[in-house]
Amino acid sequence: MISFETIQQAHDRIRPYIHRTPVLTNQTIDELAGAKLFFKCENFQKIGAFKARGGLNAVLQVAANKEGKAITTHSSGNHAQAVAFAARQVGLPAYIVMPRTAPHVKKAAVLGYGAEVIECEPTLEAREQGVRDVIERTGAVLVHPFDDDRVIAGQATATKELIEDAGMEKYGTEPERRTRPFDSILAPVGGGGLLSGTALTTHYLSPATRVVAGEPEGAADAILSFHSGRIEKAPYINTIADGLMTTLSERTLAIIREHVADILTVSDAEIIAAMRLVWERMKIIIEPSCAVPLAVVLKHKDQFAGQKIGLILTGGNVDLGKLPF
Amino acid sequence: MISFETIQQAHDRIRPYIHRTPVLTNQTIDELAGAKLFFKCENFQKIGAFKARGGLNAVLQVAANKEGKAITTHSSGNHAQAVAFAARQVGLPAYIVMPRTAPHVKKAAVLGYGAEVIECEPTLEAREQGVRDVIERTGAVLVHPFDDDRVIAGQATATKELIEDAGMEKYGTEPERRTRPFDSILAPVGGGGLLSGTALTTHYLSPATRVVAGEPEGAADAILSFHSGRIEKAPYINTIADGLMTTLSERTLAIIREHVADILTVSDAEIIAAMRLVWERMKIIIEPSCAVPLAVVLKHKDQFAGQKIGLILTGGNVDLGKLPF
Repeated sequence: MISFETIQQAHDRIRPYIHRTPVLTNQTIDELAGAKLFFKCENFQKIGAFKARGGLNAVLQVAANKEGKAITTHSSGNHAQAVAFAARQVGLPAYIVMPRTAPHVKKAAVLGYGAEVIECEPTLEAREQGVRDVIERTGAVLVHPFDDDRVIAGQATATKELIEDAGMEKYGTEPERRTRPFDSILAPVGGGGLLSGTALTTHYLSPATRVVAGEPEGAADAILSFHSGRIEKAPYINTIADGLMTTLSERTLAIIREHVADILTVSDAEIIAAMRLVWERMKIIIEPSCAVPLAVVLKHKDQFAGQKIGLILTGGNVDLGKLPF
Repeated sequence: MISFETIQQAHDRIRPYIHRTPVLTNQTIDELAGAKLFFKCENFQKIGAFKARGGLNAVLQVAANKEGKAITTHSSGNHAQAVAFAARQVGLPAYIVMPRTAPHVKKAAVLGYGAEVIECEPTLEAREQGVRDVIERTGAVLVHPFDDDRVIAGQATATKELIEDAGMEKYGTEPERRTRPFDSILAPVGGGGLLSGTALTTHYLSPATRVVAGEPEGAADAILSFHSGRIEKAPYINTIADGLMTTLSERTLAIIREHVADILTVSDAEIIAAMRLVWERMKIIIEPSCAVPLAVVLKHKDQFAGQKIGLILTGGNVDLGKLPF
């Protein structure tokens, strides 16, 4: 199990390379939600998404321990950029297997960080085969997008900052302890790396806070796995939230079953409406996957009314030529 | 002449109603520009634009001095919202004359603040006639978008915050005085209210800093007036920067001729490219008029190379259904 000390060490390790992103609030959205919302803006993070945290925490350790001469991974987008970015920081080559359907802007960014892109068919099988081929050819070390304790510990640092900056930290100074803790913290769920990290940090720092996940109706595997206790497949895959199409692993499912209070789903129309609301009222750019937690709060108002809520805004990498509005 | 004390008083007056907006930086854009840029994010201001400052400073004084029972103005957008917002704060009715071609999102916002919208033809003559009609009917007091010392003093507070937060303040504490002052501060120019306020604050707080204005080629009146010393008309009006189509007044021209170092023009293609760059790399939403100063820096790199530069990001009110990319 990932301890709080492991998360603290991850934070110390990656701190020189990341932004301490701001926590923003918005009066209009609070009024619509009937709650007080604190948005942790990982869309302003390096590479435009929280994934920089997990990628750095893993790659910095691979380099420090001399585990291999290159890094590889498969990803539809933000984790690809994160690994390419992290590998460049330590001077290791990176080989990124990406589905040929990944947004152009994400592929261009990976190339911009000096990594090699290997395109594959948009299936999990093709991605994994692509990574096996790279490892055989180059001896690279795999940094999995979510099924990796080092990646999870890195993602966990976003919630550590959120709680330190806007929620009650259990071990903080006196003024910090007087701050009202979050009633709920929300994150989206795809493979479950961010959600696992979010749940672990919250468990250690603010155990009375409920962690709730948001999932698209068109990739609703985690909600099934959460209730059955087994890795389930989504009934169908069809969603604009392109970062959330993956399924949980045994590792993330175990953490989520223990530390997450609930998973709630939202439709693509609800995701697009929440995304547009953030663009129009907060004047910040978020990608569709990133809008899922706000869509959950706006859909299930009764469950969140009057609460103090933290939301992880996960990323802002959108193809501006292909907007849903 | 507007004194520094007047600007300080304006700041004290409006402070309870406005956001102290953040100053953001971006490594990628710095590398492209070959300079160190500090973006004062008035797109995060109340009503989504710096205009809240000037509107509040005028309307709060109209209310305090009991100068009239209602407020009126004419505006293509952001000043309209600013006056509607400010009038609501003091409980006065607002009558806003808007050209029928103004973006829908801006009209909707004015109505949302409880003001009455009077549509007119998109000419200065029609706007002014609309305001005269309102005054005759209601006894409202006009708060002009820029030809008004109280509005100029309000707009001047944005640069006061920028210099206090990221540049050297002449009258600041010892650590503040050790900060390197801005080499240049840039703002866009339409009617010249923001530019006049920017130039006055800079003159008082950081007199060695050059104030440079950016203007669209398709509304290039200010550059002609700046050089001739008379109010000139633009050769033609055709630009995506819908907030910058107005001409200077004698009042703003006099301030600009005394305190602005230069005015540089940019094409719509350059404005759109700069806007897109900010959206993609900074993950924040700015409107076309707002991108003009960055477009100037990127076009005239030789003039700004190696400098520390402040840029006023003026607003983020765009119709998401009508993007230029």
